[in-house]
Amino acid sequence: MNALRHQMHEIIFEADTPAGRAFDLLLIVGILGSVLAVMLDSVQSIRADYGTILLAAEWGFTILFSIEYIARLYCVGKPLKYATSFFGIVDLLSILPTFLSLFFPGTQYLLVIRTLRTIRIWRILKLAQYLHEWDYIVRAIRASTRKITVFLVLLITLITILGSLMYLVESEEHGFTSIPRSIYWAIVTITTVGYGDISPQSDLGQFFAAIAMILGYAIIAVPTGIVTVELNHARRDFKVSTQACPECAKEGHDHDAQFCKFCGAKL
Amino acid sequence: MNALRHQMHEIIFEADTPAGRAFDLLLIVGILGSVLAVMLDSVQSIRADYGTILLAAEWGFTILFSIEYIARLYCVGKPLKYATSFFGIVDLLSILPTFLSLFFPGTQYLLVIRTLRTIRIWRILKLAQYLHEWDYIVRAIRASTRKITVFLVLLITLITILGSLMYLVESEEHGFTSIPRSIYWAIVTITTVGYGDISPQSDLGQFFAAIAMILGYAIIAVPTGIVTVELNHARRDFKVSTQACPECAKEGHDHDAQFCKFCGAKL
Amino acid sequence: MNALRHQMHEIIFEADTPAGRAFDLLLIVGILGSVLAVMLDSVQSIRADYGTILLAAEWGFTILFSIEYIARLYCVGKPLKYATSFFGIVDLLSILPTFLSLFFPGTQYLLVIRTLRTIRIWRILKLAQYLHEWDYIVRAIRASTRKITVFLVLLITLITILGSLMYLVESEEHGFTSIPRSIYWAIVTITTVGYGDISPQSDLGQFFAAIAMILGYAIIAVPTGIVTVELNHARRDFKVSTQACPECAKEGHDHDAQFCKFCGAKL
Amino acid sequence: MNALRHQMHEIIFEADTPAGRAFDLLLIVGILGSVLAVMLDSVQSIRADYGTILLAAEWGFTILFSIEYIARLYCVGKPLKYATSFFGIVDLLSILPTFLSLFFPGTQYLLVIRTLRTIRIWRILKLAQYLHEWDYIVRAIRASTRKITVFLVLLITLITILGSLMYLVESEEHGFTSIPRSIYWAIVTITTVGYGDISPQSDLGQFFAAIAMILGYAIIAVPTGIVTVELNHARRDFKVSTQACPECAKEGHDHDAQFCKFCGAKL
Repeated sequence: MNALRHQMHEIIFEADTPAGRAFDLLLIVGILGSVLAVMLDSVQSIRADYGTILLAAEWGFTILFSIEYIARLYCVGKPLKYATSFFGIVDLLSILPTFLSLFFPGTQYLLVIRTLRTIRIWRILKLAQYLHEWDYIVRAIRASTRKITVFLVLLITLITILGSLMYLVESEEHGFTSIPRSIYWAIVTITTVGYGDISPQSDLGQFFAAIAMILGYAIIAVPTGIVTVELNHARRDFKVSTQACPECAKEGHDHDAQFCKFCGAKL
Repeated sequence: MNALRHQMHEIIFEADTPAGRAFDLLLIVGILGSVLAVMLDSVQSIRADYGTILLAAEWGFTILFSIEYIARLYCVGKPLKYATSFFGIVDLLSILPTFLSLFFPGTQYLLVIRTLRTIRIWRILKLAQYLHEWDYIVRAIRASTRKITVFLVLLITLITILGSLMYLVESEEHGFTSIPRSIYWAIVTITTVGYGDISPQSDLGQFFAAIAMILGYAIIAVPTGIVTVELNHARRDFKVSTQACPECAKEGHDHDAQFCKFCGAKL
Repeated sequence: MNALRHQMHEIIFEADTPAGRAFDLLLIVGILGSVLAVMLDSVQSIRADYGTILLAAEWGFTILFSIEYIARLYCVGKPLKYATSFFGIVDLLSILPTFLSLFFPGTQYLLVIRTLRTIRIWRILKLAQYLHEWDYIVRAIRASTRKITVFLVLLITLITILGSLMYLVESEEHGFTSIPRSIYWAIVTITTVGYGDISPQSDLGQFFAAIAMILGYAIIAVPTGIVTVELNHARRDFKVSTQACPECAKEGHDHDAQFCKFCGAKL
Repeated sequence: MNALRHQMHEIIFEADTPAGRAFDLLLIVGILGSVLAVMLDSVQSIRADYGTILLAAEWGFTILFSIEYIARLYCVGKPLKYATSFFGIVDLLSILPTFLSLFFPGTQYLLVIRTLRTIRIWRILKLAQYLHEWDYIVRAIRASTRKITVFLVLLITLITILGSLMYLVESEEHGFTSIPRSIYWAIVTITTVGYGDISPQSDLGQFFAAIAMILGYAIIAVPTGIVTVELNHARRDFKVSTQACPECAKEGHDHDAQFCKFCGAKL
């Protein structure tokens, strides 16, 4: 019995065996297929013509994911810990909406929860050959978080003041009807998105907007710089081993080094 | 008496004690609450329904901030220096507009000054656990200022010439009614904001615009590069400056240094 | 006979001789001229006036390129390997559409294939003085591919969920008619393109859009950082790999290395 | 006589003396004033009211600049070399249009040439305290030029193919009336400007556009990375002196180093 659970764990949670990799591939196809079905279902014309097929597909995917979810619960060491983990909750949210739609027919809100299935692809990324890259990016983002937070606080105060200023300068008929809406405009402008649904018309408004654009254009440098520096350090950490020379005790040797680069002793 | 002032200073200006941290938290809630009140007050429909409540909240926040301002003046060593410092002025500007509104009723201009309160959040950032990150970003921006200035002068001359050129090439009915307006368009384009409120219609105009876009797309690299390099050096400086010379106690040695670069002593 | 083929190979495939460089220059002119002809041919008014001249030019270029293609096949060592290589196929696709247009008159689809000729310019870049730079960029992009892939998967899941959310929040008359269209909007927004053909109108929609914009504005840092780091390492590799060990002749030593890291010999 | 010329040279061409700095300041004011006058002159309403004053100002600035130009010619060592240098031509173009306007009244084209005066500010940047930063940026841009060229060729081929593809996919009533116009759209999209004056309407067009946007969003990383790496190397070169240790002959010492960090010898 335990052997079966162990073997199932190998296939479902790991990606080292051929069976495990085959399972992962199947899962990717399933996830992409089910998300595609949700998308197509939202297109009026397609729903009218192929609604029944899409409903059948939805139930097919849901039953498959349910079996998978039960199998995961069965073969994992600590089922409760899995069920309350990030991926455990995402797995549950992938099947729940379809069952709930039996009780709450016609609810659109369940549709969005279904697309959360897409997140399940991350699990396979984390398992498979991209683990190293995943780690690298996550490590750099984690190292940047506090610095980015400081930057975001600076940005948000800037946007608030800019939005308020433009609310004064531009009149209401130009779309700046309230401070929250002016702040929305400020975000659209500072981030260089620039829809053009609201845009300054007065000379003074265009002058302030021009300054805001150049500012937004230039300060993108700050988060980019922060992440670049952290990515650089994360990469160096991967490359340089923590191995110290047994003779002179110096560190900073490359992974492929066989002799100390400072004293020539064998590592 | 002095003990009380010292204790108040600890709570209001520092963040090392539980009381100081509680005060900071309270202040953040107060700042965000009062800014939110200003924002909601600017929405026509909300003002019509909840105008009296918002006015009461505004006065509540103002009285609280006034007490805080007086307390700061009381417990700080040099009250005048505080009052004329950047944060001292921001603190004053947070309370003044509400009192002034008694004398100048209906002035919209006081509204914007109120939102300057948001800047007060910076003070807490600088105090609390984000001091290190704040220092890091500010140091890099300060080190970049002169280089960014040179870049901005280059950018502004480019924008001026591009704007003038487009004023010639595009006729007035396409929105290019004067050189200042053409320069506004050039800024919208070079910074990749792209509202689309003014856009070139003639073949030649679109050709020049296309070149301007590719240019704007590429030269963003310059400020980004400048800040990234400075951030990288600022981070290295933090890492390097730990080892002090045993002889002359100077810091700033490289990792591979074996002798002090200032006095020649063995590290 | 062999001498002729060798000499032709020198001229057509290499760029070290004056004749080879002259051939490359001629080819660039030919490629640019033929692409320009295709472009002009697509402009209604020009086609009406100069259609016959453009058709003649098209046939002229095609015959020239055909002779060149046959010459390449003749003088290359392994004709089949060339014919099935990336540039071999591009060369063939540069001449085929014009011949095919004899059998399928009026097909617009052949037009696009003609513009694939532009890719032929890459071949000359790879040959000539830009080989070093080409190598540098390609090397860095190749080293980044796997990391960028992880980033893109994260981005696409984010976009999918954002698109679905906005489909719920915004009603259909604002342009969010289906999940695929909402995802299109999400891509336009996250990448900061911001056409403004679809834009959120409701308060909640603008709130979510604002968060998406700030997110899109900040996460551009990730691919930029990845590529910057790899470009930095690619450049360092060029610089480092000059010193070879006198004993084992291996390269790749750091600048501060005093002993070979592979065999321990003094450098 | 020679003493006068030498002294004038000091004042006009250098910025080390108080008189030289005063001259530079005056020149900046003059340049900004004359450019402002040109801008205001292009605004219909301002021209109608203050046309005479602006014309007088224009002639005032022109006469001042003419005197300056003659003074430069007089005091410089090789007048011809100065007259044919980049800044010599810019200086001439700053005064010529006003004189030419006597012979060709009403020509708008002379207006744009006048705004070329803005470039004259660069000369002061190069002289004054910003020389170091100017050198730094120019050096990095020069080192990046060849790599950016390769990137631009890749980008332009990509844009050409994308534009041709969209010309096929999207019909003419959506704005994609010819390949050149489609390429204009492709540039607007890839550079993330996104005016929205032309935007894809068909499902397939939006799908290709979405791919183009993500591509444009990601490949901005390449020029940014190239410039960042070069800026980093340019900064390192400035910081690390070329001084070698007299004892162990090692290089790479900081500018503030007084002792060799490898052997402890006095530098």
